[in-house]
Amino acid sequence: MENITAEYMAQQLELMGEKALRAARELALLSADAKVKMLNSMADAVEAAMPEILQANAADMNNAVANDLSSAMQDRLRLDEGRIKTMADGLRTVAQQSDPAGKVISSFTRPNGLVINKVTVPLGVIGIIYEARPNVTVDAAGICLKAGNAVILRGGKEAFNSNIALAAALDRGGQAAGLIAGAVQIVPWTEREAVQIMLKMDKYLSVIIPRGGEGLIRTVVAGATMPVIKHYKGVCHAYLDKSCDLESALKILINGKCQRPGVCNALETVLIDRAAADVLVPAVFKTLCENKVTVFGDEEFRKYAPDAEVLAEEQLFNEYLDLRISAKVVDGVTAAVEHINFYGSHHSEMISAEDAAAVETFLNGVDSAVVYANASTRFTDGGEFGMGAEIGISTDKLHARGPMGVDELVTYKYIVRGNGQVR
Amino acid sequence: MENITAEYMAQQLELMGEKALRAARELALLSADAKVKMLNSMADAVEAAMPEILQANAADMNNAVANDLSSAMQDRLRLDEGRIKTMADGLRTVAQQSDPAGKVISSFTRPNGLVINKVTVPLGVIGIIYEARPNVTVDAAGICLKAGNAVILRGGKEAFNSNIALAAALDRGGQAAGLIAGAVQIVPWTEREAVQIMLKMDKYLSVIIPRGGEGLIRTVVAGATMPVIKHYKGVCHAYLDKSCDLESALKILINGKCQRPGVCNALETVLIDRAAADVLVPAVFKTLCENKVTVFGDEEFRKYAPDAEVLAEEQLFNEYLDLRISAKVVDGVTAAVEHINFYGSHHSEMISAEDAAAVETFLNGVDSAVVYANASTRFTDGGEFGMGAEIGISTDKLHARGPMGVDELVTYKYIVRGNGQVR
Repeated sequence: MENITAEYMAQQLELMGEKALRAARELALLSADAKVKMLNSMADAVEAAMPEILQANAADMNNAVANDLSSAMQDRLRLDEGRIKTMADGLRTVAQQSDPAGKVISSFTRPNGLVINKVTVPLGVIGIIYEARPNVTVDAAGICLKAGNAVILRGGKEAFNSNIALAAALDRGGQAAGLIAGAVQIVPWTEREAVQIMLKMDKYLSVIIPRGGEGLIRTVVAGATMPVIKHYKGVCHAYLDKSCDLESALKILINGKCQRPGVCNALETVLIDRAAADVLVPAVFKTLCENKVTVFGDEEFRKYAPDAEVLAEEQLFNEYLDLRISAKVVDGVTAAVEHINFYGSHHSEMISAEDAAAVETFLNGVDSAVVYANASTRFTDGGEFGMGAEIGISTDKLHARGPMGVDELVTYKYIVRGNGQVR
Repeated sequence: MENITAEYMAQQLELMGEKALRAARELALLSADAKVKMLNSMADAVEAAMPEILQANAADMNNAVANDLSSAMQDRLRLDEGRIKTMADGLRTVAQQSDPAGKVISSFTRPNGLVINKVTVPLGVIGIIYEARPNVTVDAAGICLKAGNAVILRGGKEAFNSNIALAAALDRGGQAAGLIAGAVQIVPWTEREAVQIMLKMDKYLSVIIPRGGEGLIRTVVAGATMPVIKHYKGVCHAYLDKSCDLESALKILINGKCQRPGVCNALETVLIDRAAADVLVPAVFKTLCENKVTVFGDEEFRKYAPDAEVLAEEQLFNEYLDLRISAKVVDGVTAAVEHINFYGSHHSEMISAEDAAAVETFLNGVDSAVVYANASTRFTDGGEFGMGAEIGISTDKLHARGPMGVDELVTYKYIVRGNGQVR
């Protein structure tokens, strides 16, 4: 790539923004059927472009090997026929979902005869900033378009060639079915300045959704002049009440910690009710050890499980994302709620209890996006919630909280019909 | 007032934030009935404190006269028995509204048996930053509390004594009916640094709602690290289509411009359909002049109304807030929509037309919070929409758009009940 100046990128990004906004205004007027056809045509085009996409991805993979990328990153970057087919099918699934735009949220007639309809409408242009995962290019474009939004995508530089090839296929397929040019655009520069410029484009972008690690998200939040929907991390908790069914509690605990430890809805801390610590702690410690989990326990936990590692207080804020867990004894459900609200990240938390009063105290008191009684926190996921496609999970409180699907990518407007009313 | 250091204010504001967050967690658990009683008791306390409030307000008014405040500002600042009674009645009205928290938005059972409820819950702590209008102190506190939120209020320094007296009354009345200490707090410093500190308190404040002029709002947006719900200004448009009923159109136009020109939902620009400019322009100009409006017309407008003032293009972005208006001839409804989307502020816009197709093009195409057919933009108001109390009007697209009442001051959480489900 030649050397690009920030000034040139700013000019070009401005043009991309204008184009996206024009496209968004047209997209907002498309019928639900037209959007379905467009998304299906894009799915076909992604499959038809399989050779070019694989070729582009091979170039990215060569660079990845040359640059010694971690095997986890290489795995996320790698495309094959099956993965491309999965992306295309993802577009078809999104196409079939209920159209989130044009829904009447409420409708009322005022005493003066004004008829007021509150109707869902697309947000406009959505910016997505993400890491080297080419599948996000297709998934995010599909979800945004389904809701009638244009999208500007900025993926990780390691996936640059793959993203360009995927976006070209999306564009080709979309335009064959009436997609407006500019509705899906990839930022064609891998320079970091391009992100900083994009974060100031509040004139065009209604919202930015960052997807990736905490560092990326903090960069976006610090720089963005438009709203950001995000979660920083998932410090998810399990609380085992004295009333819990121990067998069920242990099964949920191991699922939450071990089934896929590297994701945001995996467990990071287990809290044990003091009233049954003598029974619960040894059982919890034994089962975690059997599942190869390294347990860091506080002083009281280690009274009943002396072989646990020593827990430092600041570890209670940790998102380990691997087979480590913090463990602490607390004074019943009220103390558990307080602990979670202080140390947690407002993502997903679980109580294991048979006592209905303890369950209600927990579910009402914990200030998190998703609160569970007797089920694994791993269910915090758009697919598991039945949303179809998911664009991410929000731990914010404004606009969207928890898993976000197409229904979270619209706003509303008030349409008021009168016959000459004045104040 | 003694000299207060920024460091001291930061420490004290931190304590206020902690206190507010604790209060918010308790408020969220209050029953709907308890909140009604609390608000009614606060209303009674405001009335009972009439002598102290009037005395405090007299001190503010003396300062206002000494500092030569404009008569408009003095009018907004002045309290009398009637105005205090109106505030108290406002609290009683809010008390009677439907409780926005604890509503089940949706409820579904997944194939694996998980029961998922999406339930409205309070936002937490809300920050309100406003100018020298003591009524906002009471109105905003009432609306925030009704939705189960704690509130930290920072009013204009000119109303300082009035606000302290009002907040003391609210606190007294609230605590007599179970209000948690810290649920309503006034920032007790008039220094500008106090606002800047408050804007960084995202650990405690879920959202800031600024109320006032564009300068105040830009300061808040620039400094805030938490979400802000706002509107900068209201550059509201009327478009008169060739199909309009001229008599009705003129009546709505004059109402929008003249009934209360200093507010955000008043008209600032009138657009005239070229196809009927020869008839519409002279009639519009004559009626506006008769109502003492100064009209700035573009070249084409002035062809049919040569006595209009010359319009400079940049005036098309103006929010005059007085008896001036921009006037321009456009090429039909499509051009009107494009003009509004480019020059407007996404607040409230109106079409006057009998042609149903033109009406739909306008209502669907204009990207504003509230769009009207054949009615005055002056109806963009929580009261006029039947929301009861209003905390402001949003031209943002995330979370809340248009007039905001108690229903906009909640978020939701997912409450999931299982019996041992794992992935």
